[in-house]
Amino acid sequence: MALTGVLRPGHVVIRVLDMAAALNHYVEVLGLIETARDDKGRVFLKAWDEHDHHSVVLREADEAGMDYMGWRVDSPATLKKLAADLEASGLCTDLSWVPAGEHPKTGERFRFTIPTGHIMELYAEKEQVGNGMPTTNPDAWPDGLKGMAPSRFDHCLLYGDDLDGTVKVFTEILGFNIAELVVAGPDKFPIGAFLTCSNKAHDVAFIRQPVKGKLHHASFLLDNWYEVLRAGDIISKKDVSIDIGPTRHGITRGETIYFFDPSGNRNEVFAGGYIWYPDKPTIYWTDDQLGKAIFYHDRVLNEKFLSVFS
Amino acid sequence: MALTGVLRPGHVVIRVLDMAAALNHYVEVLGLIETARDDKGRVFLKAWDEHDHHSVVLREADEAGMDYMGWRVDSPATLKKLAADLEASGLCTDLSWVPAGEHPKTGERFRFTIPTGHIMELYAEKEQVGNGMPTTNPDAWPDGLKGMAPSRFDHCLLYGDDLDGTVKVFTEILGFNIAELVVAGPDKFPIGAFLTCSNKAHDVAFIRQPVKGKLHHASFLLDNWYEVLRAGDIISKKDVSIDIGPTRHGITRGETIYFFDPSGNRNEVFAGGYIWYPDKPTIYWTDDQLGKAIFYHDRVLNEKFLSVFS
Amino acid sequence: MALTGVLRPGHVVIRVLDMAAALNHYVEVLGLIETARDDKGRVFLKAWDEHDHHSVVLREADEAGMDYMGWRVDSPATLKKLAADLEASGLCTDLSWVPAGEHPKTGERFRFTIPTGHIMELYAEKEQVGNGMPTTNPDAWPDGLKGMAPSRFDHCLLYGDDLDGTVKVFTEILGFNIAELVVAGPDKFPIGAFLTCSNKAHDVAFIRQPVKGKLHHASFLLDNWYEVLRAGDIISKKDVSIDIGPTRHGITRGETIYFFDPSGNRNEVFAGGYIWYPDKPTIYWTDDQLGKAIFYHDRVLNEKFLSVFS
Amino acid sequence: MALTGVLRPGHVVIRVLDMAAALNHYVEVLGLIETARDDKGRVFLKAWDEHDHHSVVLREADEAGMDYMGWRVDSPATLKKLAADLEASGLCTDLSWVPAGEHPKTGERFRFTIPTGHIMELYAEKEQVGNGMPTTNPDAWPDGLKGMAPSRFDHCLLYGDDLDGTVKVFTEILGFNIAELVVAGPDKFPIGAFLTCSNKAHDVAFIRQPVKGKLHHASFLLDNWYEVLRAGDIISKKDVSIDIGPTRHGITRGETIYFFDPSGNRNEVFAGGYIWYPDKPTIYWTDDQLGKAIFYHDRVLNEKFLSVFS
Repeated sequence: MALTGVLRPGHVVIRVLDMAAALNHYVEVLGLIETARDDKGRVFLKAWDEHDHHSVVLREADEAGMDYMGWRVDSPATLKKLAADLEASGLCTDLSWVPAGEHPKTGERFRFTIPTGHIMELYAEKEQVGNGMPTTNPDAWPDGLKGMAPSRFDHCLLYGDDLDGTVKVFTEILGFNIAELVVAGPDKFPIGAFLTCSNKAHDVAFIRQPVKGKLHHASFLLDNWYEVLRAGDIISKKDVSIDIGPTRHGITRGETIYFFDPSGNRNEVFAGGYIWYPDKPTIYWTDDQLGKAIFYHDRVLNEKFLSVFS
Repeated sequence: MALTGVLRPGHVVIRVLDMAAALNHYVEVLGLIETARDDKGRVFLKAWDEHDHHSVVLREADEAGMDYMGWRVDSPATLKKLAADLEASGLCTDLSWVPAGEHPKTGERFRFTIPTGHIMELYAEKEQVGNGMPTTNPDAWPDGLKGMAPSRFDHCLLYGDDLDGTVKVFTEILGFNIAELVVAGPDKFPIGAFLTCSNKAHDVAFIRQPVKGKLHHASFLLDNWYEVLRAGDIISKKDVSIDIGPTRHGITRGETIYFFDPSGNRNEVFAGGYIWYPDKPTIYWTDDQLGKAIFYHDRVLNEKFLSVFS
Repeated sequence: MALTGVLRPGHVVIRVLDMAAALNHYVEVLGLIETARDDKGRVFLKAWDEHDHHSVVLREADEAGMDYMGWRVDSPATLKKLAADLEASGLCTDLSWVPAGEHPKTGERFRFTIPTGHIMELYAEKEQVGNGMPTTNPDAWPDGLKGMAPSRFDHCLLYGDDLDGTVKVFTEILGFNIAELVVAGPDKFPIGAFLTCSNKAHDVAFIRQPVKGKLHHASFLLDNWYEVLRAGDIISKKDVSIDIGPTRHGITRGETIYFFDPSGNRNEVFAGGYIWYPDKPTIYWTDDQLGKAIFYHDRVLNEKFLSVFS
Repeated sequence: MALTGVLRPGHVVIRVLDMAAALNHYVEVLGLIETARDDKGRVFLKAWDEHDHHSVVLREADEAGMDYMGWRVDSPATLKKLAADLEASGLCTDLSWVPAGEHPKTGERFRFTIPTGHIMELYAEKEQVGNGMPTTNPDAWPDGLKGMAPSRFDHCLLYGDDLDGTVKVFTEILGFNIAELVVAGPDKFPIGAFLTCSNKAHDVAFIRQPVKGKLHHASFLLDNWYEVLRAGDIISKKDVSIDIGPTRHGITRGETIYFFDPSGNRNEVFAGGYIWYPDKPTIYWTDDQLGKAIFYHDRVLNEKFLSVFS
């Protein structure tokens, strides 16, 4: 099999201050589909073209942010092997197994904290509920979509201090590659790493900041630049707090718009970007061009980009 | 590494009846970039966002069609292993090594004929010449693009008789998966298979037809539906023979237009389609819905689709 | 005032064989909004960004086709003057006044039959019901849109015999201009005229055919080429009979798709086209390029274009 | 004729500090086509789909800004009548005739200064040089386009003090209508007027500011939102000073990006917007929603919008 190991970002658990407001945002504005609630009050959602039971989990809490991010691996054997590799590496902390069923319709998960302070999980099994269309003679898209209607949860951008340690975990243990790297100064000190485990330009990214375990944004995939415009229109129609966009990223070339959920967690919807292959040269961005790297048209960071996270 | 084995379609060698007319088509109309000619008169071209030296090779001949298709594998070790596996399988014929340098800037290639009569190659090394932009602080696209300007050679659709044998080679030896399958009759007899070795909806496809080694089309990747419109405009402006489109495929959901090079080889440029993962359910199309499968809007095949190939 | 006289196509009355099926089509598939029904069983509809009470009227009948087309003029004074001019010209037949209220919320209409056999009307008053948004601080588009959701009824293309007589009525009495003209043979015999009373590339068009009063299609305005794709997808999802498209017209440059309502009346949704001005040179199309004129990409007429009308 | 009187913005004369830099901008970046230079050093340019000889004139000067804007009227008779009306109104100052030929290929122009201090001109004759394509069987677009390649010069937004006086000139003498009006405070004091003489959402706009004769931006028409993205990419690739965008305007609904020429004159390229008719209700924007009115997604003005003009 040509795609093996860690396949994709499988879920992100986001803390929200008020569940009703959050659901209005994630269902009516963003356009995710609720698939379950559990007795802890967590709500499980998916994007329309994902087959798995859920990809976004909302948990009501006193503080916004990300509880953890989960990664789908190709098999139980890989799950066991990667768990053992992580334990053997000594790079992560708080390693533990979460029993099957703790997330509905989901097998056991191996949990660990990476050097930037983020909790990550690996899992091999989650029930498929389909994409709203038959697997025989399907249409191009299902009826009844709402809001921005992204097709998939795509990636997270995370802020943390020990960038080198986290990159080491992802590249040396989990089999990721560095698609793009932001470097500072004449010594090219890494300050941002965009990591992929697929043909996508990124599956997760980290920016070096003197914090632990912070979420910059959770990102969802749109089909095209007109859907980015429509997302911007919905942001205005629904009076959602916008961050920046529509614009293009220099990094990954994606066409993007950023906004905030009612709890202050940043969301992105985006389209486009190149097809990545393992032999593609790593792209480097120097810190004097950081503005262009992040916001390709403006070529300056907006004030919120570095200072606002959850 | 999460992407291993056979990485991508690396080259296709297309026979053309008149090289000057072919070059006008592939360079000025389609918008590929010439990178070399050799002493056999072959011309080597690449699409702008490919880093490798070439992905399309034109060879002047008395008959149109495809000489062979080459696949980039991840390493020389994989090349040797897959060559051995192919030999051991007994599924292919005419197995041989083509020495390094037979294609410029390219390492040795392992060649074999699959049951549908198509010649395939594996190779591990081809010099990178870049995508016209620096790897540090690049722009979103390079200057000087011509014609339809696809970013990549994406896949081929091929016609041949022993579909089962060829699917067996690709899935059991080369690690491909069946993303979508067209089946006929109550017994669901396979008549078309769309195969992927990546996150793409397809990297190669085969249709069962009572012929050997035929090319239905070579396909190139555009960014969006407006580029498909622009391709249609260029087809008219340059008086290129159109087949069908713009339209959408049911299979893969791609947005597409088909046309012919001056020798009668069919080309496709397309955009869109979903992200494929190994655990995505295979999509089935029944032959009574074949029209919708191929041309999602018209829901009937045009007369040329099954009868015209090269 | 810079825009005077006949302002725009204001309504088209379409005969349908089954009202329930027609309403499903015009409301759920095309996406018009029902505004009234009258005691004759007629249903009145509008497109979302039209302010007037209705622009499409459906009437159940034994035969499909167009009853008549109505034109909004700038004032009652213009209505009276143009009625008098039409009477004085002797070019039209069956001239009569339809009393106010015969269409709901609509003033008196002056009705006349043009030389191609089509019934036309002029009127100056129709109540405005708005576009679903306030006139103070409106959003970019309203909630609750369905189907293809065109913003406006845009034009009709009509088939009839006495093209010269009809063009004379529109250009000499009603103040229209010929934006584009299709001519046949060395004597440039006019066979198709695209007429405008605005900055649009056409407000009505006529093709010379040996028939009286026939409707080729009623056309509705989309915003962009992605909406044309989406219209094509809806055609397939809802199993609507497609004619041709997505494609571009040579004439007007519009991006288009044609399909049929359940009664066999052809609809078009389209986007794009140039801004017309009175000093813009008339575009001529010769009959040897008729295919390109109509379907810019295919450059041949499909078999239905000339033979199927209602 | 349905379109009469003042037909369209015919030219804008822009002062630039350095002609070579300006030409690089207006030809290579924006993509206008040079049609003439005169012995005063002025350079005359047009957008590709304009038929007239020129629509933009660059004049080297010590200070950036707009010399004057010219309006094409439908006939010499209208020119004479409107000139007489303007004189009789007493609303304008510095009325004079500029002889034919002062602009190349252009008839006599009637010049006057409006209450906001802007110099305006009317003219009836300018030689047509075509749009680079034949008037018989033309293609959809010409070859050889450069840069952003807008199809037309579309409008200007101007800053000045006596908004009421200028609106009176345009609506009462020149036949314009107010498509959208920005009002301040409980008394709805007009602070911005968007004026049209066509089916376009605006042909010129004025913002009340305590200055005389200032240019906020000259605007050019693109076909679609993807061309706005491409314009943003070109801004970055060519290191052009960006103002804001891509985004949508609330006013007119246009999809837009703003940037500066090397002299500091603001340019806009935009696509979209509704079709205006004389009976369309005027849209009002209240000053508490001014951000949304101007930048529909951000819903706040950027700091430059009100303070930077030339």
